[in-house]
Amino acid sequence: MTTFTEKLDRGWSVSGSMLCVGLDPILERIPEPFASSPRPILAFNRHVVDLVGNLACAFKPQAAHHGAVGAEEDLAETIAYIHEAAPHAVVILDAKRGDIGSTAQMYAREAFERYAADAVTVNPYLGDEGLAPFLEWADRGVVVLCRTSNPGAALIQHAMIGDEPLYLAIARRAQSHWNAHGNVMLVVGATNPDELAQVRRVAPDLPFLVPGVGEQGGDARTVVRSGARKDGAGLLVSASRAILYPAAGETIRSVAERLHGELLTPRVEA
Amino acid sequence: MTTFTEKLDRGWSVSGSMLCVGLDPILERIPEPFASSPRPILAFNRHVVDLVGNLACAFKPQAAHHGAVGAEEDLAETIAYIHEAAPHAVVILDAKRGDIGSTAQMYAREAFERYAADAVTVNPYLGDEGLAPFLEWADRGVVVLCRTSNPGAALIQHAMIGDEPLYLAIARRAQSHWNAHGNVMLVVGATNPDELAQVRRVAPDLPFLVPGVGEQGGDARTVVRSGARKDGAGLLVSASRAILYPAAGETIRSVAERLHGELLTPRVEA
Repeated sequence: MTTFTEKLDRGWSVSGSMLCVGLDPILERIPEPFASSPRPILAFNRHVVDLVGNLACAFKPQAAHHGAVGAEEDLAETIAYIHEAAPHAVVILDAKRGDIGSTAQMYAREAFERYAADAVTVNPYLGDEGLAPFLEWADRGVVVLCRTSNPGAALIQHAMIGDEPLYLAIARRAQSHWNAHGNVMLVVGATNPDELAQVRRVAPDLPFLVPGVGEQGGDARTVVRSGARKDGAGLLVSASRAILYPAAGETIRSVAERLHGELLTPRVEA
Repeated sequence: MTTFTEKLDRGWSVSGSMLCVGLDPILERIPEPFASSPRPILAFNRHVVDLVGNLACAFKPQAAHHGAVGAEEDLAETIAYIHEAAPHAVVILDAKRGDIGSTAQMYAREAFERYAADAVTVNPYLGDEGLAPFLEWADRGVVVLCRTSNPGAALIQHAMIGDEPLYLAIARRAQSHWNAHGNVMLVVGATNPDELAQVRRVAPDLPFLVPGVGEQGGDARTVVRSGARKDGAGLLVSASRAILYPAAGETIRSVAERLHGELLTPRVEA
């Protein structure tokens, strides 16, 4: 069995980068010729994988962008295509699921069996019982929301547990309790480097998924300085719309190449 | 346009009860002849709606129990069937979604457009920006997780904001900020009546979805005493597995009749 840690290491090593490409297909923004194909979402997703597969350590297909338009089968085939065309890349289903008991077991089956994702994003609001049914899938990653990149997140994530804010308490519990199988990651937004550095101090070993680079205003190099582990790796820095829907004068490949260059893994430079 | 409040009032009034029936289909537990039908989940769901439709003010189909086995079309047809066969009943898609910006908009479209649900459960961990895209659907309900019924939930839900626990701060903000369209509900578990009463004091007007009656050990009459509004209504008390998979000597209808009787709405008694 390949452990989740081994999958991450392979992704960083083969791609040479900590770039994670988000797949957030929006029908109205899919370009031709894919928009006119019988299955625009699948065709566009595959096109993106073809263009940037060798630059990305991970892909992060987003559930709602498929579910809203009934494109679950496109999502499943997209993930199967990533496993085939970019087998080094870790596939994180971005679904932010969260429930307890048998319902959480069903969400884990949805992510890991039905979609064959390597990892899934989950919401910690329900506590230990909300995470346990995911964590027991020992070779799959469980990516726990910790500190998100939006301003209003502070309402809840800065609530206090003892003398520290909730997001640090989550990070501490992830490092100490939830990571028995070495399969826990944390979501920490790119837009506040100080908080990213705080989370890194509390959870020195855990890999972080860092969204918010690109359209949300986070800077890739700052993220690496604030959030990398001592070994220089430990990050999956995610960009979605900035890559999928490039600004004028740029292309999907050119944006991904630039981000790849800003997110080189240390083992490539060694 | 029928407001969400009017939909709730119609559900309570026509059914005479605050019973919400959860639809958590589990393939291995579906009885014959439904298990042998071409679409076991849809057939079983429709059977339950036929049996208890006139006893329930609401149905709560659970997303993962359909998504794990690729039964999204069964979920959509189940909801359409409820609207047709029990048109008084409010349909709450239990999906506990939570994300920000355009992704949250996609989740709202999934619940309200694709599935035509009257309401959806959402997770507040991302704060205001996580809820706004749902709340702007003014005629649909947004059912915010507040205090869940599992013991480990205290880890996060008892974090402190000022001098009150997070779950009460959520209730306060729901009552004061999120309910501009009168379409907010709170999820408050049945297993701790004292906390249910606290939430009711902070949010006197909001309807509550109360899971945890039946298999999780909550008691229906205690829930009504602790959680009802001043008008005696204001609750959707949800039972799922206790109804769908009745113990020996009971039937789906007999369990639902008993719960219906314990959850009578005051206007029926008046």
